[in-house]
Amino acid sequence: MRWTLPSQSLPSAWFNVMPHLSEPVAPPLHPGTREPIGPSDLTPLFPMALIGQEVSAEPWIDIPGEVLDVLRLWRPTPLIRAERLERALKTPARIYYKDESVSPAGSHKPNTAVPQAYYNKQEGVARLTTETGAGQWGSALSFAASLFDLECKVYMVRASYEQKPYRRIMMEVWGGSVVPSPVDEPDNPGSLGSAISDAVRDAAGREDSHYSLGSVLNHVLLHQTVIGLEAKEQLIAAGEELPDIVIGSCGGGSNLGGIALPFVPDAGVELLAVEPSSCPTLTEGRFDYDFGDVAGLTPLLSMYTLGHEFIPPPIHAGGLRYHGDSPIISSLVKTGRMQATAYPQGKVFDAAIQFARTEGTIPAPETSHAIRAVIDEALAAKERGEERVILFNYSGHGLLDLGAYNDYLTGQLDQV
Amino acid sequence: MRWTLPSQSLPSAWFNVMPHLSEPVAPPLHPGTREPIGPSDLTPLFPMALIGQEVSAEPWIDIPGEVLDVLRLWRPTPLIRAERLERALKTPARIYYKDESVSPAGSHKPNTAVPQAYYNKQEGVARLTTETGAGQWGSALSFAASLFDLECKVYMVRASYEQKPYRRIMMEVWGGSVVPSPVDEPDNPGSLGSAISDAVRDAAGREDSHYSLGSVLNHVLLHQTVIGLEAKEQLIAAGEELPDIVIGSCGGGSNLGGIALPFVPDAGVELLAVEPSSCPTLTEGRFDYDFGDVAGLTPLLSMYTLGHEFIPPPIHAGGLRYHGDSPIISSLVKTGRMQATAYPQGKVFDAAIQFARTEGTIPAPETSHAIRAVIDEALAAKERGEERVILFNYSGHGLLDLGAYNDYLTGQLDQV
Repeated sequence: MRWTLPSQSLPSAWFNVMPHLSEPVAPPLHPGTREPIGPSDLTPLFPMALIGQEVSAEPWIDIPGEVLDVLRLWRPTPLIRAERLERALKTPARIYYKDESVSPAGSHKPNTAVPQAYYNKQEGVARLTTETGAGQWGSALSFAASLFDLECKVYMVRASYEQKPYRRIMMEVWGGSVVPSPVDEPDNPGSLGSAISDAVRDAAGREDSHYSLGSVLNHVLLHQTVIGLEAKEQLIAAGEELPDIVIGSCGGGSNLGGIALPFVPDAGVELLAVEPSSCPTLTEGRFDYDFGDVAGLTPLLSMYTLGHEFIPPPIHAGGLRYHGDSPIISSLVKTGRMQATAYPQGKVFDAAIQFARTEGTIPAPETSHAIRAVIDEALAAKERGEERVILFNYSGHGLLDLGAYNDYLTGQLDQV
Repeated sequence: MRWTLPSQSLPSAWFNVMPHLSEPVAPPLHPGTREPIGPSDLTPLFPMALIGQEVSAEPWIDIPGEVLDVLRLWRPTPLIRAERLERALKTPARIYYKDESVSPAGSHKPNTAVPQAYYNKQEGVARLTTETGAGQWGSALSFAASLFDLECKVYMVRASYEQKPYRRIMMEVWGGSVVPSPVDEPDNPGSLGSAISDAVRDAAGREDSHYSLGSVLNHVLLHQTVIGLEAKEQLIAAGEELPDIVIGSCGGGSNLGGIALPFVPDAGVELLAVEPSSCPTLTEGRFDYDFGDVAGLTPLLSMYTLGHEFIPPPIHAGGLRYHGDSPIISSLVKTGRMQATAYPQGKVFDAAIQFARTEGTIPAPETSHAIRAVIDEALAAKERGEERVILFNYSGHGLLDLGAYNDYLTGQLDQV
């Protein structure tokens, strides 16, 4: 069963979680001075509108009309009840998911790519640079840049660049220009951290260019809250009140934040982050100030981190291969408002195949981390005979990750 | 702007065009005797429910509840107004498209795969065989078979099998078994016609198996009419009455039939079939009885045909590489109720890129044939200063066809 909303029901403001955090997020520090940074430190990279949103304490921030016009190309996204999966699991739990895979780029990422492109265009920027892991973010920004007539340069983590030629072509269809990163080390499989260094260095060195980040930062999570806001309305249409638990996979935190942040004020709703065992930032990292990138060019952020020089193994969920995490998500986990768990790749793909063969759609490897946790939650609810309401974010499809599925089906997938 | 419909608004009956044809479709002939075939000739291949639908004169045929339950995983599909494309073309035309790419398999094909799997399951069949060109149909049937717990064997046209490994993997994710066709000629690029021979031969030779066809036949077009029925309702919600013209790409005729047949009784609505110049069945074929397959195993159908031994060049729109056409579509063209036009591959990809860079989504090469015609219609309307309402079927996405886009972007695409 699916619940859709008419175009007019798209939220007209983003939900800002800042006033609802029990501990405020500590301010970013300047990489040179280690003093709190001011807006002027960020203007070489970001437009003022986004710098303002990064530190805003307003509870709601209006979405510009031109951004709404583009989001309406695919939003509101459907809320779907996974009845066939429930039946296969014989669980009394009711499982709902928000289908973010219906966007042109195939994931939740355009929710922030579009406003970022818009605000940059408004301030006269001609060109955006960014990094991408699995390619979801680079696709989203290339798409958004094409609609606002901006140039887009994407530094793609080399492991993904080589595993996923289709992702590169997708960006090129939208006019994006894509190079493997690190640019100067052809034998290095790369990581999000090092690709960020490449993209920041490029933007900082050119007058006409800004840098665009697809996760981690406060304004990015802010833009993603349309997901959770729509889900709240759709759950009511489905006859539910609040979910018992909200689940999302977590790399930098944007898809998780998007679905979970609007539920932070609802004390009875559990929130769960799911990450890969091979890159266990929230479950095994330390809470500390650290750089966002490998080269130490970015401000220091207060977050869980595995160390900014940590290079995760080349698992297929490229979007989750990040040493750090969103300061907002980190704060929620540190204060106990959110829990975190980690799964190895083999168990994640078991869940992905079960989902594809019951619900019909093929999930991204990143998304499949959330699905693994959902299935385990639903089985635990069956064990306890509990009618639990589970909501998760179906953050993207796996149609450009079929090479990973082939590895799984032919027994060549690294299980850890 | 998008118009969605709630799950409950899914049509509960299919629209049968048969009573509305100005000339009845001539009956299929037995390949041996050349006499009209009876139901018993078809029972080795099809369940009785589908054989009944093939010859039904009832104006409406109820959709079973279990089929509706599965269709609701993605239906009703959105109707989208292509406002950005209109602005780019500076046309007074209003362009609407039905987005069939949102299905799990990424095209309109599951609309018939699901009822076909259902009726076969109802009659105790354990295994389905089929052919696939570009892979859209094989994906759809593998998906549907997995939901009804049937085995699925897919004979994939060798040219596509080699060009599109991701399509094969997709089918395998759903548990399908895929082999290149013709099975016994490893150097032959194949065609839909020869893959049909392989699949029919397999099903005819096994008690537990039936054959399933993704286009051409009357019951297939019948199942696809949910597209046009939903579009009619959505156009009214969008403030339109009837479209001036309905456009679809045409290989065997199923996506075109799906959107166009419900408009056949509306005399003022023009209907347009778009096919590749390299496989010009409707525009250059002859109207005659011919076999549906290369080996001459199927009944003879009354249709436009290039001859059942015609092997089209390996263009990227694999789903349009068919020597024949649906008898219903052929009848509509022959009697003048529908027009047909053809485009070379290069012009089709020009249109695909323009669509991706304005509307945001990347269309399948098959779908891009319709888009090419839509753009030319909209430009002609601009020339005449006419507010024309154009409706077309966005039959599938091109996310598994990015190799073709790469050829285009790097100047390697065969233009004809």
